[in-house]
Amino acid sequence: DVSVTSPWAGVSCYCGSVRCSEIKLFLSEGTAVKTNRSTGHICLFIICGFSSSNRSVSLFSRNMDQRDEKKNQQCSSRVCVHNPHLDALKDDILYHFNLGTGSHNLQAMFGDVKFVCVGGSPWRMKSFIEFIAAELAMEDPKSEYPNICAGTDRYAMYKVGPVLSVSHGMGIPSIAIMLHELIKLLHHAHCTDVTIIRIGTSGGIGLEPGTVVITEQSVDATFLPKFEQVILGKTVVRNTDLDQGLAQELLHCSKELNQFETVIGNTMCTLDFYEGQARLDGAFCSYTEADKQEYLIKAKEAGVCNIEMESSVFAAMCKLSGLRAAVVCVTLLDRLKGDQLSSSHEVLHSYQLRPQILVGSYIKKQLNAKAEHI
Amino acid sequence: DVSVTSPWAGVSCYCGSVRCSEIKLFLSEGTAVKTNRSTGHICLFIICGFSSSNRSVSLFSRNMDQRDEKKNQQCSSRVCVHNPHLDALKDDILYHFNLGTGSHNLQAMFGDVKFVCVGGSPWRMKSFIEFIAAELAMEDPKSEYPNICAGTDRYAMYKVGPVLSVSHGMGIPSIAIMLHELIKLLHHAHCTDVTIIRIGTSGGIGLEPGTVVITEQSVDATFLPKFEQVILGKTVVRNTDLDQGLAQELLHCSKELNQFETVIGNTMCTLDFYEGQARLDGAFCSYTEADKQEYLIKAKEAGVCNIEMESSVFAAMCKLSGLRAAVVCVTLLDRLKGDQLSSSHEVLHSYQLRPQILVGSYIKKQLNAKAEHI
Repeated sequence: DVSVTSPWAGVSCYCGSVRCSEIKLFLSEGTAVKTNRSTGHICLFIICGFSSSNRSVSLFSRNMDQRDEKKNQQCSSRVCVHNPHLDALKDDILYHFNLGTGSHNLQAMFGDVKFVCVGGSPWRMKSFIEFIAAELAMEDPKSEYPNICAGTDRYAMYKVGPVLSVSHGMGIPSIAIMLHELIKLLHHAHCTDVTIIRIGTSGGIGLEPGTVVITEQSVDATFLPKFEQVILGKTVVRNTDLDQGLAQELLHCSKELNQFETVIGNTMCTLDFYEGQARLDGAFCSYTEADKQEYLIKAKEAGVCNIEMESSVFAAMCKLSGLRAAVVCVTLLDRLKGDQLSSSHEVLHSYQLRPQILVGSYIKKQLNAKAEHI
Repeated sequence: DVSVTSPWAGVSCYCGSVRCSEIKLFLSEGTAVKTNRSTGHICLFIICGFSSSNRSVSLFSRNMDQRDEKKNQQCSSRVCVHNPHLDALKDDILYHFNLGTGSHNLQAMFGDVKFVCVGGSPWRMKSFIEFIAAELAMEDPKSEYPNICAGTDRYAMYKVGPVLSVSHGMGIPSIAIMLHELIKLLHHAHCTDVTIIRIGTSGGIGLEPGTVVITEQSVDATFLPKFEQVILGKTVVRNTDLDQGLAQELLHCSKELNQFETVIGNTMCTLDFYEGQARLDGAFCSYTEADKQEYLIKAKEAGVCNIEMESSVFAAMCKLSGLRAAVVCVTLLDRLKGDQLSSSHEVLHSYQLRPQILVGSYIKKQLNAKAEHI
């Protein structure tokens, strides 16, 4: 007779009790809300994850008043943080953005953001904002699209209308720092209904170079759909599900565009570009060409279409914060045929434009549909 | 009657056999050379690491001719790659540097390099080259110190005389890509006797902010001195030893300088800045202030003086390639007292100069001593 609701997008679960063993059955990570009928209190459980070593569940619970409950209900459209300590901060400094709640009016600066596009290279994210400005006919020929994070060289950030473009560097740790601060920024700015898309480059497996891959599931180097996060020295496993509806919409959009091959498939996310991706051209290599081929073919059999270095933590953190998320990466080469990026600069550059073109077209379509609806 | 020699700096081991079980006893990672007395062949064993899951050892062995043996003997002064596939590459493209053996004369460009300084921020590595040019009285007032990697925004690279300054972004994957390509660059350029120092920022534990920490050992989030690398889906554990002689020389140099507090201690290297370092101010936090304090105090008891995000893979890769390596990081705050970097920009900037000042002074001293010796 106790109802348990998960505010995570697309997931709504009901069961008779909130005991860990039962929560385990339906949520690998998420939040459960339980009403205590005797006290009237609403209790929020944040399931922080499962330890891979001992299969235990870490639970954080606190009593919520009606205002907190309201906040929680808003979570499906608001960008969520799950950190009770933030309320106690007088000024939240987003250090790697050189922004903060004390120094900047984040709601005025970012309150209208509906789409966030992120990618490794700061140059590419600047070129994306110029592209999207033209696509949405919002460009100002005189505008230079200033870098909002100009005071730091850690990340670059650009904005035009409801679209934010942010660079994240290379690798899981680099994108994770950016996402922690981006999620707090969107939260402080009271943003609602935000869609976030990573546009990147990758190595393909058995695909023609230049193919765009929309990620179905992000898997690790053992082809499992999970992200391991070490917290207080203990490994916690997080879910790497992405928004399947968004992935299908993007695929449909690409079919309409009809400019390049686009597929949906799994993306392997690794911590290393050379040995971690079975390349034969790093400073160190202790395996043979046959070992490499065997590993990549196993990956292909597990549904892996491409390999990159950020999608797992991106999927995990976006899911936790209620952001509708997708990963769209172009393949720069077929790893079954080689390791080095030896195509000409012009060819590689034209490939790198493809995720921008697809996502730009998708955003335009969404905004036009919304305008018609109003 | 078989002698086994490890060419790794400072390690020289002898035992009666090269069976894995005995190699395990003295080397967690390294190379062993065995002479087959009947054939006269010299056999090189590269011990790639131990799998943490099944405690097995991966061994790569090949017969070496006399020229190979010579190469191996030169390994203590030459920068080593351990990759037999590289010889087969007609052109080695260092993609993330926008350099290559086919397009650039790497020996002419980099053959004189004796010191490499690396750090996360491109701006800081540019300011370091300006600083070192002045320190060595090699500055050209008209010079702009062009970025050698100007064709890419992944990393920035500057050079003055025998000193190379390279940025590496944030986190293990980002610095690992850079190091693979840097080690190949130094190898292709036939550099000898190279010293490499990471100059960075960190969070301190129980130290006055602004204290400089020279790393004795880089430890992981469970305080163990190891780096786990996933290769072909299997976890390989690598040693994170740094050059203890270099660490002592740097400490001695700082005492002579007498400008700021410098200590030698362990450095914890994490994959995440927020939850991974027990911060309370990320987008997600499921633990209490007491949990955080308990974890940091355990780290302190394990000899951890500071926390950053690159030292473990830096130590592991430099050791594998025979580079004399040190990590010198300033602490920007005391994590026992807080999480946010709330000091003024001026104060933080002055702290960030300290590793530069120390390493600049060390390089100057070394070059002067060498000049006197000649």
